[in-house]
Amino acid sequence: MPVNFITFLSDFGYTDDFVGTCHGVIKTIAPDVEIIDITHGVRRHDVQGGALILANTLPYMPESVILAVVDPGVGSGRRPLALRTASGRFLVGPDNGLLSLATKELGGPAEAVELACSSYSLPEVCKTFEGRDLFAPVAAHIYLGVGLASLGAPVALESLQQIELPVPVVEKGAVTASVIYIDRFGNVQLNLKRNQLEEAGAKAGSALLVSHDQESWLVPFVYAYGDVEPEHLLIFEDSYHNISFSVNQGNAAHIFQIQVGDEMKFSLPA
Amino acid sequence: MPVNFITFLSDFGYTDDFVGTCHGVIKTIAPDVEIIDITHGVRRHDVQGGALILANTLPYMPESVILAVVDPGVGSGRRPLALRTASGRFLVGPDNGLLSLATKELGGPAEAVELACSSYSLPEVCKTFEGRDLFAPVAAHIYLGVGLASLGAPVALESLQQIELPVPVVEKGAVTASVIYIDRFGNVQLNLKRNQLEEAGAKAGSALLVSHDQESWLVPFVYAYGDVEPEHLLIFEDSYHNISFSVNQGNAAHIFQIQVGDEMKFSLPA
Amino acid sequence: MPVNFITFLSDFGYTDDFVGTCHGVIKTIAPDVEIIDITHGVRRHDVQGGALILANTLPYMPESVILAVVDPGVGSGRRPLALRTASGRFLVGPDNGLLSLATKELGGPAEAVELACSSYSLPEVCKTFEGRDLFAPVAAHIYLGVGLASLGAPVALESLQQIELPVPVVEKGAVTASVIYIDRFGNVQLNLKRNQLEEAGAKAGSALLVSHDQESWLVPFVYAYGDVEPEHLLIFEDSYHNISFSVNQGNAAHIFQIQVGDEMKFSLPA
Repeated sequence: MPVNFITFLSDFGYTDDFVGTCHGVIKTIAPDVEIIDITHGVRRHDVQGGALILANTLPYMPESVILAVVDPGVGSGRRPLALRTASGRFLVGPDNGLLSLATKELGGPAEAVELACSSYSLPEVCKTFEGRDLFAPVAAHIYLGVGLASLGAPVALESLQQIELPVPVVEKGAVTASVIYIDRFGNVQLNLKRNQLEEAGAKAGSALLVSHDQESWLVPFVYAYGDVEPEHLLIFEDSYHNISFSVNQGNAAHIFQIQVGDEMKFSLPA
Repeated sequence: MPVNFITFLSDFGYTDDFVGTCHGVIKTIAPDVEIIDITHGVRRHDVQGGALILANTLPYMPESVILAVVDPGVGSGRRPLALRTASGRFLVGPDNGLLSLATKELGGPAEAVELACSSYSLPEVCKTFEGRDLFAPVAAHIYLGVGLASLGAPVALESLQQIELPVPVVEKGAVTASVIYIDRFGNVQLNLKRNQLEEAGAKAGSALLVSHDQESWLVPFVYAYGDVEPEHLLIFEDSYHNISFSVNQGNAAHIFQIQVGDEMKFSLPA
Repeated sequence: MPVNFITFLSDFGYTDDFVGTCHGVIKTIAPDVEIIDITHGVRRHDVQGGALILANTLPYMPESVILAVVDPGVGSGRRPLALRTASGRFLVGPDNGLLSLATKELGGPAEAVELACSSYSLPEVCKTFEGRDLFAPVAAHIYLGVGLASLGAPVALESLQQIELPVPVVEKGAVTASVIYIDRFGNVQLNLKRNQLEEAGAKAGSALLVSHDQESWLVPFVYAYGDVEPEHLLIFEDSYHNISFSVNQGNAAHIFQIQVGDEMKFSLPA
């Protein structure tokens, strides 16, 4: 199947023209491409959150050129990238780790270039809006078949920035994990897989002691929201296969003041 | 005219990838379909609000397969549905009333099935994100021509969940209505039609006494925002033919702390 | 190149169906047109902000029929317009200045009509949602080739409403400017160009005294966010060639309580 799509993720939000302007740039260069907006609601400058979403949603997206911009370092020294994976997919974005998790899922990088001003960027590359002036037009040109070698100088693959996700600490009877994402419903996603929780001795259907900050709660480890009453707490494997801490029909993050980066401990009750 | 569109409504919001991921799923299955996003800003779990928007916007949408997900009971006992209306349109979503008002507008249900895991859903149906794993792929397959009989077991049409909208109480000289929707401009939409207001004795061009909570205001019953000064109150027939209570260029719901479900009374002034 | 696009800007927001409904109306009339949403996050009723975005983003958009709706006076006396520019582009929207800056960029108006109810609007034109009932269908029909003469009576070009942007006051050693736009990152855009700042004696690389309300700060005049440390202030030429006042990786407007319309003074330090 030929690639018909550019998939696009950013922290541009929806109140300004940033997303629409990038669409305009892409469509001016490649009128036939179809753009799928993965989301533009990534928390401002949350590179790790953007990298996670990009990797998590990969299995649900059609073949595409991937364009991603979450870029606290815009205009500073970090390199603008285009890369090709071992599986033949192309990604465009800043070299700050944003692309790294998706790249790994796609077989790792096979070729990467540092984007330079060229006939494939807009005439005047502005240092404050590279999304519009460099990344978007390059993604459109890659879609049209332009090779990486035309876009910039090669980059050593081992020098590409990586996201280092926090690793949970599994002990006998307890595991300490970190919050890696909170969605708009206040569901708290942890860097924790079902098998790690089970390694610590947890069993689906039983209850766990969950601790955050100075508070602790006894919470059932279940399969779905519907397994507990509305307004009740639950722990479950979420739709991206991470363990999540939630309130059924409520906002767990808001109620318990939980933020990305916080530690949470899950222990077998005494 | 062949159907070229899937129209899509949800309470997924825009900060996460939920909408984009469903687009990806649909486009992977049916690359040619065009998706029209009715809105994804329905208030979280507001089934009635979603049902109203779905029905209200029907006359403005092209022929389409309708995909709608507002689903507080995800993962619980409520049935996932696909149905065909008497007029030959298809709707996909949870059996919680969300589809009921639009279905009625389209001639009522002619056939309905309870969706089961099949080759038409994603391989692994996750109980926490049926929008992605069940409803979106089923809508795409219906667009491609798959019949309902392939998608699940028949459901008795009289067992389909309905939305029961509150009914206004019309008396001589007064009518008591309920707030059914508030838009982002703070316009307060009531379960009240122009003829019901007129039945109670109101005349366009005159003023009515409007009561909410402990407060009352004398408000002109007019045709459009422009009929009153900026910052002034008005009652008028809104663009979906419901009576609305508004502040011209202001936010009535915010100023007067009005919420969906509240009662408001409209009386002829003494 | 034939026109394949309608570009669409409004203050409709994303929580209601307003944008989706206009998409539906357009697609019902012209199923082949592609809609690019410039943004629908313009601040409610901010005609000047909408006009600026429409003009600023023009160079990045493909050839298109331009549809724009920011309309505090909906249903009042202001005229609904369609116009053709000297360069042959079409714009549709209210005659309140919203279209004026883009029209000027496109060579000025060559023909304009006051839209009337016709077979090119929806059967029932509602006074409260002209975006849906008049502007969107007219844009779709213009895309299909309907001429302005079929859409309404001619309007004298010199009677079209204009946006008058505030003009900065440049003195020796100081310039007083106005805030014309604030983006979602809190960057404060001024009605001020680089050459005007330089006229007052400022040099890139040096620092300026910036005053707002009762406060003053010494701020470097640089090229890009990355030229200062995170959380530090900067002045720079932004991606639309206006001078902006920002906090690197912070929200300047929020921190310093700056709003659109505020005055800011930039002086050479003593």
